[in-house]
Amino acid sequence: MIKIENVRLYTGQEYFPNGCAVTDGAFVRYAGDSKGCPDAPGARAIDGKGGLMMPGFYNAHCHAAMTLERGVGSDLNLMDWLHQIFPIEDRLNAEHVYNGTRLAILEMLRRGTVAFADMYFFMDEVARAAVETGIRANICRGCTSMEGLDSTRDLYRAHEGAGDGLVKVYAGLHSEYLTTPEVAAYALQVAKELNTGIHVHVSETKSETDGCIERHGVTPVKYFDQIGLFERPTIAAHLVHVTDEDIQILARRGVYMAHNPASNLKLASGVARVSEMLDKGVRVALGTDGPSSNNVLDMLSDMRLASLLQKGVFGDPRLLPARQALTMATRTGAEALGYRDCGLIEAGLRADMILLDGHAENMLPGPDPLADAVYSAQGLNVTLTMVNGRMLYQDGKFLTLDEDEVKRKALESAKALRVL
Amino acid sequence: MIKIENVRLYTGQEYFPNGCAVTDGAFVRYAGDSKGCPDAPGARAIDGKGGLMMPGFYNAHCHAAMTLERGVGSDLNLMDWLHQIFPIEDRLNAEHVYNGTRLAILEMLRRGTVAFADMYFFMDEVARAAVETGIRANICRGCTSMEGLDSTRDLYRAHEGAGDGLVKVYAGLHSEYLTTPEVAAYALQVAKELNTGIHVHVSETKSETDGCIERHGVTPVKYFDQIGLFERPTIAAHLVHVTDEDIQILARRGVYMAHNPASNLKLASGVARVSEMLDKGVRVALGTDGPSSNNVLDMLSDMRLASLLQKGVFGDPRLLPARQALTMATRTGAEALGYRDCGLIEAGLRADMILLDGHAENMLPGPDPLADAVYSAQGLNVTLTMVNGRMLYQDGKFLTLDEDEVKRKALESAKALRVL
Repeated sequence: MIKIENVRLYTGQEYFPNGCAVTDGAFVRYAGDSKGCPDAPGARAIDGKGGLMMPGFYNAHCHAAMTLERGVGSDLNLMDWLHQIFPIEDRLNAEHVYNGTRLAILEMLRRGTVAFADMYFFMDEVARAAVETGIRANICRGCTSMEGLDSTRDLYRAHEGAGDGLVKVYAGLHSEYLTTPEVAAYALQVAKELNTGIHVHVSETKSETDGCIERHGVTPVKYFDQIGLFERPTIAAHLVHVTDEDIQILARRGVYMAHNPASNLKLASGVARVSEMLDKGVRVALGTDGPSSNNVLDMLSDMRLASLLQKGVFGDPRLLPARQALTMATRTGAEALGYRDCGLIEAGLRADMILLDGHAENMLPGPDPLADAVYSAQGLNVTLTMVNGRMLYQDGKFLTLDEDEVKRKALESAKALRVL
Repeated sequence: MIKIENVRLYTGQEYFPNGCAVTDGAFVRYAGDSKGCPDAPGARAIDGKGGLMMPGFYNAHCHAAMTLERGVGSDLNLMDWLHQIFPIEDRLNAEHVYNGTRLAILEMLRRGTVAFADMYFFMDEVARAAVETGIRANICRGCTSMEGLDSTRDLYRAHEGAGDGLVKVYAGLHSEYLTTPEVAAYALQVAKELNTGIHVHVSETKSETDGCIERHGVTPVKYFDQIGLFERPTIAAHLVHVTDEDIQILARRGVYMAHNPASNLKLASGVARVSEMLDKGVRVALGTDGPSSNNVLDMLSDMRLASLLQKGVFGDPRLLPARQALTMATRTGAEALGYRDCGLIEAGLRADMILLDGHAENMLPGPDPLADAVYSAQGLNVTLTMVNGRMLYQDGKFLTLDEDEVKRKALESAKALRVL
């Protein structure tokens, strides 16, 4: 048991200026006002020093091992960038993915991320890195063929539920533009068979969306809906170029949108109509996308960006206010990734919590802690990250990985890939 | 003398993978490859540990003491927000401004800012705080009357050049919409008389710009040009809503634009046409604006935002590439604030330099350090901030101010202002 006292607590629904949280194993036993805090004999006590305790972040779309390619091909057109990335990825092996993912996990844990949805290669290695370090990972391969999708069965058998439920395995479909209707239908079949979800890129760029209309006569959203894909729980990454009808479909089908504001700007894909989509009932989660198009895996930074963008680009400072942005990055993200008992600090749910330094100058004076969490806080203000009741990061120290070793191995892999 | 070895050095023009810099008093004596580094007997040696040494940031538009109002009135329309801010500002006294400014300086130094252009009230206190802590400050009152502008003379006499040139005093004109043509002309007269520059808000919002056209028949840029304002060196903050003719005027007159991307989004003012304006010869510097509309004084964060916004909103990933963004935040900023011998790390110029942690996970693997500085680096990756040859911040410690005292005093002032 762990008892964290002397915090301002935001449970994801309620705010307690004098808060306290008690965990019991992987679960929250109590979260609320310090006056009602139960005795917890033998519990390890942690002084929160007036910091803001809140749910950790669920990164809804990532290609984590692309940390190894961070900084490659900046300021280029998409195709020119990909022509730099593809030869590097062609050299990738399992060890590289393990090393790159561990660097990403280190980066995410330090910045308060407790879970990530990952689409990449050699996904056994991602599962291994997640279980070893204690972070949640929803994994899939970004498949472009039936053979690729077939491997989802092995992945599922080997890792689904591993680490007391840390790992989830989804069927990964790269996108409409790199697959055929048969492959998309097969992704649905595999997801049904395994009773799991689907992770797919949808309507990231205008040319992709226009191309789908040319190829299939309908938008990517409608195309996937006609195939029946959204019958399964779906993470649809990007959704920048959508029609009003697309929005209706997404809302009706309960699709989880992974909004990636930084990546969408950097690759000049555009700005998604997030606030409008939320109003119309679409479930919007937040993602960083891979670190080679972002380039830092910091959900606090991207939560702020998401809110500022809606206000500035759609012309109303009231859009995507602090609480809505927080929900996007926490509870909705947990749901999107399939962690139904996560994303709120509430008795009986999993203990995935973080603490923001209440004495950091950028958090002062602090009349509105939730606004501060969205508009002022920075990833490096996180002082504690707990996943599934386990302390993974505290005050600059990682408790389940060796920081120096992780960095050294990542550099070795970057050299082997000729990034350096 | 200080000798900083074992750095990757970006001077603002050239990059040296094995760099070294030597200071002599307030100036850079050598900056370049470590092989050519002169002997510096008696110099204090600092191991840069492979970090990226680069020019510090010049924040071209701020209202620093608004740290005290951080978090007030989030997610509101401009007028509703101002109705929360104005009663607080009405209670402001000199001590509050001193305390709020010191909190801002602490926040900026930790994040690599070496200078800021400040427009607020009780500016003697800002000068005092700057000289005491060793940061550069270009100060002005945001005047709305001739009487206000008259006080510029006293301010100039008392503080211009203070602290070995740290402080500069400009004539501050709030804006077109809060002044008359007579007041604007008087700002020009005062600036001429003192042989100094002017700092003014211009075309921040569409309604301001439309209003000026209604009132005076011309855009704010043309209005000020007709008054002759731009004959003096001018910092024009915002310039979000400009015409093609405005851009020509700004370029021809050598006006320094202070681009404030975060504030312009948060208040839903819009996105300035920065990349196009740079192409057409406008000198664009970068500002944070005040911390009550941003809400963190972090030039690295806003430099990244500026670049991402141009790419994403104007639809081309090649816009505002890394080097151009760096120049905006450093050398052009130094020029905008009137520090002509600052903004590059070059022998004979002032030593305003920072160091970014080369071992931070978000800076790895590091194939393109300048891209990393713009897209990956975060304010809290700064490990050293030097202004005018003097170490002000190193490895989490402030050398010229007492962090705990600054925070305590700021909280006292926030309470007195009834923010808390």
